[in-house]
Amino acid sequence: MMDLTEDQLLAAIYRVLSGAGPEVIVGPGDDAAVVRPGSGELVLTTDVMVEGVHFRTDLTTPRDLGYKAIAVNVSDVAAMAASPRFALCALTLSPAIDAAWVVELAGGMRECCDEFALSLVGGNLSRGDGVSIVVSVTGEVVPGSLGGSAAGLRVASQRSWSDDERDAIRRHMRPTPRVGEAGVLASHGVTSMIDISDGLALDLSRLCRASGTGARVELARLPLHPAATRSEALGGGEDYELLATLPDLGAVEDARSELREAFGVSLSDIGAIIEAKGEARGEEGLVAVDEDGTEGSLMTEGTNGWDHFR
Amino acid sequence: MMDLTEDQLLAAIYRVLSGAGPEVIVGPGDDAAVVRPGSGELVLTTDVMVEGVHFRTDLTTPRDLGYKAIAVNVSDVAAMAASPRFALCALTLSPAIDAAWVVELAGGMRECCDEFALSLVGGNLSRGDGVSIVVSVTGEVVPGSLGGSAAGLRVASQRSWSDDERDAIRRHMRPTPRVGEAGVLASHGVTSMIDISDGLALDLSRLCRASGTGARVELARLPLHPAATRSEALGGGEDYELLATLPDLGAVEDARSELREAFGVSLSDIGAIIEAKGEARGEEGLVAVDEDGTEGSLMTEGTNGWDHFR
Repeated sequence: MMDLTEDQLLAAIYRVLSGAGPEVIVGPGDDAAVVRPGSGELVLTTDVMVEGVHFRTDLTTPRDLGYKAIAVNVSDVAAMAASPRFALCALTLSPAIDAAWVVELAGGMRECCDEFALSLVGGNLSRGDGVSIVVSVTGEVVPGSLGGSAAGLRVASQRSWSDDERDAIRRHMRPTPRVGEAGVLASHGVTSMIDISDGLALDLSRLCRASGTGARVELARLPLHPAATRSEALGGGEDYELLATLPDLGAVEDARSELREAFGVSLSDIGAIIEAKGEARGEEGLVAVDEDGTEGSLMTEGTNGWDHFR
Repeated sequence: MMDLTEDQLLAAIYRVLSGAGPEVIVGPGDDAAVVRPGSGELVLTTDVMVEGVHFRTDLTTPRDLGYKAIAVNVSDVAAMAASPRFALCALTLSPAIDAAWVVELAGGMRECCDEFALSLVGGNLSRGDGVSIVVSVTGEVVPGSLGGSAAGLRVASQRSWSDDERDAIRRHMRPTPRVGEAGVLASHGVTSMIDISDGLALDLSRLCRASGTGARVELARLPLHPAATRSEALGGGEDYELLATLPDLGAVEDARSELREAFGVSLSDIGAIIEAKGEARGEEGLVAVDEDGTEGSLMTEGTNGWDHFR
């Protein structure tokens, strides 16, 4: 039960936040925030975490939850080869939540904001039957990167992926948005990029549908975690890793070296983009190749990914 | 019950949306949107509408709800004397919702976006136990207006307010964000502005607290709707009108003439900013003056406004 008024709770939250900065003109507490971004293109994204769907309050600490609510948005910004700058949070609280929980949640948000150098500049507080955390993030396109135009062009031939998070609760609760890694990939001429938060198979199908292509995935090349089934690796979702396409194998090799050196992160070449035959775009154009060369549909190899309405 | 997959539903929504425009580089459907804003300061805001708290699906059409979800954010942007440009929507749907409802909701969002010339460039879809609609809007500061710095300075002496919406369901469901009106006020040197969505008394107390001032409100001058009690007028909330301060009575007179001429909207002078004595900032510094000159506390005259946790 909330022991504070809305304004008292807001005041407690503001004390935890890091909404200040030279580019923040009006921070939390006003009708809206006012910021001074750099010139150039902006990246806008929003993501929601709903109690009972994305988390359970008895299994998750509010601090981890706050961190993750920011991180999943930072991941989407990173997938556009952009750098996160400003965040807003619309928080819906249930009667079961107390002020200490909310302040811890704000603490986790600040931790992630500090780590990725963005400012939480405002938000909204409401009550509801369950807890819901909606964060939106504004990012700036990294100069010299693919930016928006390349991100709009969807041709997949290559991806970087690791499954280590899955068995490690720490990693699961604290996904690492690949901001720096996305910058490296962009500098090597990546032609498209997406974060596979809804699972490799589903996100790859979206990428292929957008470009009218298909893809051929060599199942043996998937960087499968020892503890994960192939179905989990293809359809489990919640891996905030990047799926990217590069123009040729030379670029893949160069990007792989730099990623290993700079971040200790591996890049797996899991297949190639293929022409989509007839109407076989998106799901239908995804071919899975087994160890013995047998071809099948990638979507039936995996689950169907994280579809909220299935 | 949802009869479509998530991707099918998204495709249906995209057909309704108006996410295109010369300044939209990547619209709905990608990890994040990419836009090209004008140079200068940005205004960022977010607002949530929760089923059972802000609306009931059996009393509201999804089209009105979609319109209002955008409009309440436009109102916050207007209060910063800025012009709305881009919107994101994070939508949480309950099992009771069908696809037609969602498409109607998107239609209402488009209607409001078209009216105020902003683009819905992206969003997020999730399921939950109840419906929740979170919109965030990016605006651009109108050149020559008070912008962020003036908005940060909170000194209230004047406000524009109408209570007509309250008894008119149409007006209640379709609040009119005062974008043009805010621009007129800004051009007349308004020193601060807030939208009184949480009720006049509470929003005025926030404004005064931020500037360390008090305010003296003449109750007889409140533009009270015939159908509303004084308590409703002070504390009812959900009036998306502007409370603004102007430097002197000449500026008030000039702004009043222009608002009447340009928008047919009236401006009411309801009182003045006063020095806050000692610790009497915010609520404690709000003085209500009755018809016979008796002074009391404004907060006890009204309800306490829309506090989500009271």
